Amino acid sequence: MNQPLGAAPPPVSRLIEEFHKLPGIGPKSAQRLTYHLLRIPPEDALALAQAITELKEKTVLCSVCQNVTETDPCGICRDEGRDRTLICVVEEPLDILAVERTRGFHGLYHVLHGVISPMDGVGPDDLKVKELLERTRGGAVREIIMATNPNLEGEATSMYISRLLTPMGIRVTRLARGLPMGSDLEYADDVTLSRALENRQDV
Amino acid sequence: MNQPLGAAPPPVSRLIEEFHKLPGIGPKSAQRLTYHLLRIPPEDALALAQAITELKEKTVLCSVCQNVTETDPCGICRDEGRDRTLICVVEEPLDILAVERTRGFHGLYHVLHGVISPMDGVGPDDLKVKELLERTRGGAVREIIMATNPNLEGEATSMYISRLLTPMGIRVTRLARGLPMGSDLEYADDVTLSRALENRQDV
Repeated sequence: MNQPLGAAPPPVSRLIEEFHKLPGIGPKSAQRLTYHLLRIPPEDALALAQAITELKEKTVLCSVCQNVTETDPCGICRDEGRDRTLICVVEEPLDILAVERTRGFHGLYHVLHGVISPMDGVGPDDLKVKELLERTRGGAVREIIMATNPNLEGEATSMYISRLLTPMGIRVTRLARGLPMGSDLEYADDVTLSRALENRQDV
Repeated sequence: MNQPLGAAPPPVSRLIEEFHKLPGIGPKSAQRLTYHLLRIPPEDALALAQAITELKEKTVLCSVCQNVTETDPCGICRDEGRDRTLICVVEEPLDILAVERTRGFHGLYHVLHGVISPMDGVGPDDLKVKELLERTRGGAVREIIMATNPNLEGEATSMYISRLLTPMGIRVTRLARGLPMGSDLEYADDVTLSRALENRQDV
């Protein structure tokens, strides 16, 4: 016997542990996911393992906008058709997809990878704020559109960045408050988001 | 540009897809898990991929009891100290851990890997029922304890197996109905489960 009675085999308990580390996955969900993977054909389980490996091996953060990309700089940053005087600042890579779907924005992006949240111990240094300031130093950027989520942390982050950029002579705007407070940017429907882009206001 | 604007890079969308295939993971959770993995250090993400791979590569089903194991036969089936005349039939490998924790059972196990459920298209042939009948053929088995979950499908499965085994002169019992109906075996506390083992009744 190479395992204590009353315990799952090590490969099983190890995977339960790994799943449990993911956000929103409790110990029971972790067990269920693990036993689900035990039941499905090996090739299906290995496809998941492979997808995780490739996510880490084949993607990088764009050195310009910090978006997730397979090539550096990313497709949007390399696109010469886009307005380089305009940067839309978002919290997460998924938010870029939401803004792109409106087809109402043709500038560049900047991904903060989070928001300032003292409760969670996240300060400006944990975000890609330094990289944003770097991009605005050349003088080519005319306007920064803050597209953080319309909640407390998003507003605070937007205010913080606005106070850094306004003295440098850059116009800082934010999405119009057509977005209901407390919601999440990635859930916004295209019309609401288009309207909010058009009606953007000075912070 | 090697990806359409407004779409996530292929390694990202592929992993979202794979997560979405798992039970209880909707499209939004799949996105969130994927972007979480993007943010954490590569070694942490690869530990998850590795654990999934090893789950499939290092475990098999015990050819005797159908439990998940690293060695075949499993530790319990090879343990000469256990009562070979007594088999406890459970739905899932996790249920064995729950029964073992009571320290009140010293026989062998049999894992059905599911229950009969016509609504989900699961019949006896989809379960390890044939393997259970095979084990009882030698005449050494005196009693089968049905430890399926105390709900409709569990009861039906228990009845079905009882009808097959009783004519063969094998006593078929079930866990005492101290367990509240509609609950799940793996959640039972040890005392309740011990009591249910002691008070097992003829089906």
